[in-house]
Amino acid sequence: MTADLLRDLTDDEARAALLKWAAVPPGAIPAWVAEMDYAPPQQVTDAVVAAVRAGRTAYAHTSATDAEGDGSDTDVVARAFAGFAARRWPSGDPASLGWTPTTAATTLAGDVTAALRIVFRHLVPAGPVVVPTPCYPPFLAFLDLVGREVVTIPTDPDATRVGLDLDRVEAAFAAGARGLLLCSPHNPLGRAWTRGELTDLARLAERHGARVVADEVHGPLTLPGATFTPYLDVDPRGVAVGSASKTFNVPGLRCAFVSAPADGDTARLRALPTAENDGPSRLGVAAAEAAFTHGDAWLDALLVRLDAQRTQLGDLLAAHLPQARWRPFEATYLAWLDLRAYGVADPAAAARAAGAWPAPGHDYAPGLDGHVRLNVATTPERLEQLVVRIARGLGA
Amino acid sequence: MTADLLRDLTDDEARAALLKWAAVPPGAIPAWVAEMDYAPPQQVTDAVVAAVRAGRTAYAHTSATDAEGDGSDTDVVARAFAGFAARRWPSGDPASLGWTPTTAATTLAGDVTAALRIVFRHLVPAGPVVVPTPCYPPFLAFLDLVGREVVTIPTDPDATRVGLDLDRVEAAFAAGARGLLLCSPHNPLGRAWTRGELTDLARLAERHGARVVADEVHGPLTLPGATFTPYLDVDPRGVAVGSASKTFNVPGLRCAFVSAPADGDTARLRALPTAENDGPSRLGVAAAEAAFTHGDAWLDALLVRLDAQRTQLGDLLAAHLPQARWRPFEATYLAWLDLRAYGVADPAAAARAAGAWPAPGHDYAPGLDGHVRLNVATTPERLEQLVVRIARGLGA
Ligand SMILES: Cc1ncc(COP(=O)(O)O)c(C=O)c1O
Ligand SMILES: Cc1ncc(COP(=O)(O)O)c(C=O)c1O
Repeated sequence: MTADLLRDLTDDEARAALLKWAAVPPGAIPAWVAEMDYAPPQQVTDAVVAAVRAGRTAYAHTSATDAEGDGSDTDVVARAFAGFAARRWPSGDPASLGWTPTTAATTLAGDVTAALRIVFRHLVPAGPVVVPTPCYPPFLAFLDLVGREVVTIPTDPDATRVGLDLDRVEAAFAAGARGLLLCSPHNPLGRAWTRGELTDLARLAERHGARVVADEVHGPLTLPGATFTPYLDVDPRGVAVGSASKTFNVPGLRCAFVSAPADGDTARLRALPTAENDGPSRLGVAAAEAAFTHGDAWLDALLVRLDAQRTQLGDLLAAHLPQARWRPFEATYLAWLDLRAYGVADPAAAARAAGAWPAPGHDYAPGLDGHVRLNVATTPERLEQLVVRIARGLGA
Repeated sequence: MTADLLRDLTDDEARAALLKWAAVPPGAIPAWVAEMDYAPPQQVTDAVVAAVRAGRTAYAHTSATDAEGDGSDTDVVARAFAGFAARRWPSGDPASLGWTPTTAATTLAGDVTAALRIVFRHLVPAGPVVVPTPCYPPFLAFLDLVGREVVTIPTDPDATRVGLDLDRVEAAFAAGARGLLLCSPHNPLGRAWTRGELTDLARLAERHGARVVADEVHGPLTLPGATFTPYLDVDPRGVAVGSASKTFNVPGLRCAFVSAPADGDTARLRALPTAENDGPSRLGVAAAEAAFTHGDAWLDALLVRLDAQRTQLGDLLAAHLPQARWRPFEATYLAWLDLRAYGVADPAAAARAAGAWPAPGHDYAPGLDGHVRLNVATTPERLEQLVVRIARGLGA
């Protein structure tokens, strides 16, 4: 019943709407950039249309006074997100900090990467920054841009369980690193970190005077079987960045938010000139408000679908790519596939030749051969074709 | 007749739509940030609504192949702007380079300041950057952010004619400056630089191996009596940045463009990672396409209105603030008022106390007392109230 809420885009609709489709040749099936082949929730579309009709096409009003209910765009997003978080991530854990988003601790930005840029420039002490890899490629690019040395912690592709390697994190902190950028849940590894893992990391960071910044844009996309723990629920010194963009398929609308409850953090971010934080689009604000207020039923339908796509992927891999190794993702709609057994260094290129466009693994883990990231947020029919074509491209 | 195209926002509409209004107390009349109290053209609104309904809410497709007609968002904006430029800025001047916007020379960005940021990082040789002041405040902030030393060239507030002080520009180039950021037409001075002035500047820059970057966001807002000359029409080594944002009152939609025809420039900008150029919003692309394709009649009506507002301002100043000095702006809808005769260091603060909110002059020219920037893009009634209240605030 709720599944009716989720509308699949036709090929023509997807080509007109999505970069994922526009950038591949006719006939190819795209599975690279993290866009979904589903229409956004109707309430989100309607809210954005209403904002356009009301002329909300000029600058955002982000200069919140810190007061809940001040009516600024910051307040609008913070309160909608607070309601969403309370409904979807209630914590009965006795160790929970009981964190909840507030207007006073929220700063808006144009997108997640822009938000991370200002957080690392202004809230993370000088010193190298730890980034577990594989990682979302802009992480390395923006840290370079803001002049931060990066210490990558590569995940062993043969590990039986993918965890945070706290020994190596500790070594990096001991050697002078003072920040860690945690993708939580993790793109592309698909892990939804447990409360225990996050708590251990928070303790380690505190001991070394380091700060953890959590990119939680995929938080609401945690699938049945796993639980999302907001990082700020375990670490009062942490910083989290979120957005409605990935979950509700509106990354082009431009509204991300930083949650920084520690003393002075939010004041520092809010004091930045527009030249450094050009802020959100008001249409992104309208979308975020609608999504976090009215999007639960659509999101529930989405999670049901993604769960089914995940199961289907397992079946398809068993049938067509039996030597592929993967761990079913606990969150996101992105599968990290180890195809090394097929002996092809760049399986994404081989797949493209057969009409399937996953993302090359080496974009996420420089130097790592034989992996692809596969976006399963499409129809069952297209997913089947994707796997069949990848198999054909690999000669499997 | 065409004046019907321009719709004034009511106070309530303006308060819901504009930052300018949202950030001032009830009863106050705002005249600070450069937003207009007019609804954007209906065709622009309709185009954005259609884009939302078609789900164009995800990432922009900016990876143009350089080919005119490749259908990318870059191509869409470049071609619409080329048509607009050909219709509105035909040049019969024998010295004209005959410049015209092309897909191959265009790079999209999220907004004008973001565009300037990448231009100065990647296209302007190392060395200080010359900025005539007063200037749009983010100019100084973004140049600081990208690590460029700034040489300001303050305009003498007592000069009878406001020109480009080429002697001082030359001295700065001779002392090592290698870039100049030219606001053209100029905010807040209101000058539409002549072809002769721009040509002299271009020659000077060439002689010193310096590059001029023109912020032409106000170009289409050149008023009756003056002519806009695109900088690239006089300097093949120049770089220009534009947007539909100011002219069509859609700065929140996020689409600006760099025109960089000189060899290799555009390839360099296009090669930047998304972490450095997060690109335009697709709704901004849709707005720019509609504005530059269908916006001429609305723009003509706007220019008629702004011309009338300018005349009215002259009358109001003569009546209520006879000691104010100003030069009727040749472009933009922003008046630069010299109120020093009233002996108040911060006339904007004094005006606020009386319910009128112009922008403080010292935001544009650090250290300069006694000036305000007044945004006249409102109704005649509100403009009258603004001047009356400023006069009251100054005890005039
Ligand atoms: C981990 C992560 N962070 C940030 C982003 C970018 O999000 P946005 O485009 O909303 O800035 C993505 C997009 O895929 C992502 O996977
Ligand atoms: C000279 C100048 N450049 C750039 C901008 C900013 O334009 P946008 O918000 O479209 O980036 C403005 C806004 O007033 C401006 O006056």
